[in-house]
Amino acid sequence: MDELYITKVNVKDVRFPTSLNLDGSDAMHTSPDYSCAYVTIRTNDENVEGYGLTFTCGRGTEIVVQACRVISKLIIGTKLSDIYHDFAACWRMITSDPQLRWLGPEKGVMHLATAALVNGLWDLWARIESKPLWKLLVDMSPEQLISCIDFRYITDAITKDEAVAMLRANSSRRAELESSLRATGLPAYTTQIGWLGYGDEQLRSLCAKYLAQGYKAFKAKVGQDLDSDLRRCEIIRKAIGYEKDLMVDANQVWDVDQAVDWMKNLAKFKLKWIEEPTSPDDVAGHAKIREQLRPFGIGVATGEMCANRVMFKQLLQMKAIDYCQIDSARIGGINEILAVYLMAKKFQVPVCPHAGGVGLCEMVQHLQMWDYICLSGTSRNRMIEYVDQQHEHFENPTVIKNAHYMPPTSYGYSTKMKEESLRKYEYPHGTEWQRMIHENIFPAPE
Amino acid sequence: MDELYITKVNVKDVRFPTSLNLDGSDAMHTSPDYSCAYVTIRTNDENVEGYGLTFTCGRGTEIVVQACRVISKLIIGTKLSDIYHDFAACWRMITSDPQLRWLGPEKGVMHLATAALVNGLWDLWARIESKPLWKLLVDMSPEQLISCIDFRYITDAITKDEAVAMLRANSSRRAELESSLRATGLPAYTTQIGWLGYGDEQLRSLCAKYLAQGYKAFKAKVGQDLDSDLRRCEIIRKAIGYEKDLMVDANQVWDVDQAVDWMKNLAKFKLKWIEEPTSPDDVAGHAKIREQLRPFGIGVATGEMCANRVMFKQLLQMKAIDYCQIDSARIGGINEILAVYLMAKKFQVPVCPHAGGVGLCEMVQHLQMWDYICLSGTSRNRMIEYVDQQHEHFENPTVIKNAHYMPPTSYGYSTKMKEESLRKYEYPHGTEWQRMIHENIFPAPE
Repeated sequence: MDELYITKVNVKDVRFPTSLNLDGSDAMHTSPDYSCAYVTIRTNDENVEGYGLTFTCGRGTEIVVQACRVISKLIIGTKLSDIYHDFAACWRMITSDPQLRWLGPEKGVMHLATAALVNGLWDLWARIESKPLWKLLVDMSPEQLISCIDFRYITDAITKDEAVAMLRANSSRRAELESSLRATGLPAYTTQIGWLGYGDEQLRSLCAKYLAQGYKAFKAKVGQDLDSDLRRCEIIRKAIGYEKDLMVDANQVWDVDQAVDWMKNLAKFKLKWIEEPTSPDDVAGHAKIREQLRPFGIGVATGEMCANRVMFKQLLQMKAIDYCQIDSARIGGINEILAVYLMAKKFQVPVCPHAGGVGLCEMVQHLQMWDYICLSGTSRNRMIEYVDQQHEHFENPTVIKNAHYMPPTSYGYSTKMKEESLRKYEYPHGTEWQRMIHENIFPAPE
Repeated sequence: MDELYITKVNVKDVRFPTSLNLDGSDAMHTSPDYSCAYVTIRTNDENVEGYGLTFTCGRGTEIVVQACRVISKLIIGTKLSDIYHDFAACWRMITSDPQLRWLGPEKGVMHLATAALVNGLWDLWARIESKPLWKLLVDMSPEQLISCIDFRYITDAITKDEAVAMLRANSSRRAELESSLRATGLPAYTTQIGWLGYGDEQLRSLCAKYLAQGYKAFKAKVGQDLDSDLRRCEIIRKAIGYEKDLMVDANQVWDVDQAVDWMKNLAKFKLKWIEEPTSPDDVAGHAKIREQLRPFGIGVATGEMCANRVMFKQLLQMKAIDYCQIDSARIGGINEILAVYLMAKKFQVPVCPHAGGVGLCEMVQHLQMWDYICLSGTSRNRMIEYVDQQHEHFENPTVIKNAHYMPPTSYGYSTKMKEESLRKYEYPHGTEWQRMIHENIFPAPE
């Protein structure tokens, strides 16, 4: 690795026309085209490449693509050994560029782009080490793992020494946990029963379908209309019974007090959590909602739009959440997500990763598997979101058995897309987009 | 206005080579090139245009420019009467586009772009009404003003009725306050004595210069090196004495506990506030710092990188700040800033606007003048930052008399740049950039 360095970063705008079927529709994102900014990191050895991505919802992906290109310039020419020997320093260099940081800092478009690039760097590392990403993480010493994390702004919640101690505490159980992981995987839940754009019949048949596949936990979208939510929850509970877990997701549609009132109306359906009840930035609001919904047995979950580790820190410090939903491509890649896992462990909040968007299932499984073996040591009260969309575009798609994510065996972070999918769905010049534009299914870009 | 509609939005990348002199240098932004994304909103009447901008620091401005172009598409073809008759609805349409909001929401690049566009819409409105922006705001009824604000996510802190009542409470004093404003303006403080890149001699001579101009409040950058901070504060206090206000600004360089420790060392210099002691996202951290520094008589100020009204809401609810530093181009333009002023009034925290970057002084003065006349009714404990940079590029630059901002008299939001400045400083094709690139003062863009 000493002689390898980064020669080029290629970035593509890849979009899938999911709005045609309202797949992925919720109270705030009524007609998304699931998309991503897709990064290929090239080195001076043409056989050594890394692949990273960040999820987007269609329009505006070109902005993230451009941000990826701007940030990429910061690492062109850098030796890989310099990156991985002090990954925290590299991460800070990328996120704290003295001119670029005004555009965030560490949030929004710039942080999505950071995620794509940093995810690509981790994929590259795992490929060089000939390991699946989760195994690369698992095989690191506590000190090596910690050396990847920038602790700026979180030392009031967790120190490096505490983090190392937490990682050491579990080390004797690693072999046993890894073998259990390889045997049974980690539990998944499905969000696919209840996108808001789906009708009641579709809801019923999807409940039956996923029950038959062995799912024990189900999530539905709510928040557009209370009567409709009551009807939909009724349909779901009739289909899955009251022994299975049911969660609901409002995708930020409510104000704080409104969230409490609305959810009281749904409490009779025995809901495990309400996800994203209000603005993802409102830590104090989530804390208030959590306190007021506790008597009703409803937990609070959030994280897929939590901007960075500083926001997660506060959600934990202020006891605002019952479930911590890390996302693999919203905050600045694995380096920052590891910090969130460590803080969640310290504050005793289980991590239930967000997934479903393009490539998100492929990525988060690795992180949760590392957590299972090295940090939490349990799958109790933990599960990974699963949505059966866009997996066919990846070279190493998720493997789900009996509603469990099975550990990836191929090298890397499972982020590499198929060449054919890129040829078809690169926007707007891919063959499928050209066809759909030609057939007036979508307008031509301006 | 009924027949006017938006035909086109032109966006330019405008940069000034301030890094050559280290103007604007601080602990985090060590060599900024003060820049902006500059928006011209065209209508079907070629004599009716609006100008808006958002401040940036050089690299990456092209990303914000692209975001402005993407967001602009949302309002092309819209009638101006439809926008201004329900400005809150238009604002929500821009900030909650179901595909674009994933890229924020309401933060970072997308919100900077929103600010540029929305500021342009306000400038356009004031020009149509033939008023300076502050006077347009002052002349609105409480109900009309409130109709511009999207209250989503803040109703747990302030309701529309409360806001209207606060605006009504002051209405009898408006004429008196407006005449006092026209006579003496509003107090400014200077940040220009102590950019971190400046030497000690420069510090001394700048203190003398601004003292002579009548300034009673001064701000210096700190946070890179404690010994240097001690020496610089000593120099400044020797120059300005202990009767004048001295503030310091760390630009987010510290962790929470580090901020407290560092500032205790500087307490002997009688500092009015420490600005941006840590991450702008760390509401709980600011609250802790404020509590621990109170015994030392040091207040806490922040806001220039506060992402949106939800973050400001929490800073106020959690008693995390003594001074609320709104910025005219970080959050989503005047509509959202009005919400922050109203919440600050309710929580009894004075607003001291951030300014200094390209066009920021020009804009914030209007907002503070509206606040003075319609909401706070006082200039006590309030002042506007002033930096004497880039004003020469605006058609209607700020007018400072005896260290006071004097009320603008020309129509609009003071945001229109001179054609000659655009010709010279548009990046990278402006004549000055072409010269500097040709002379190898700056590299050519890739």
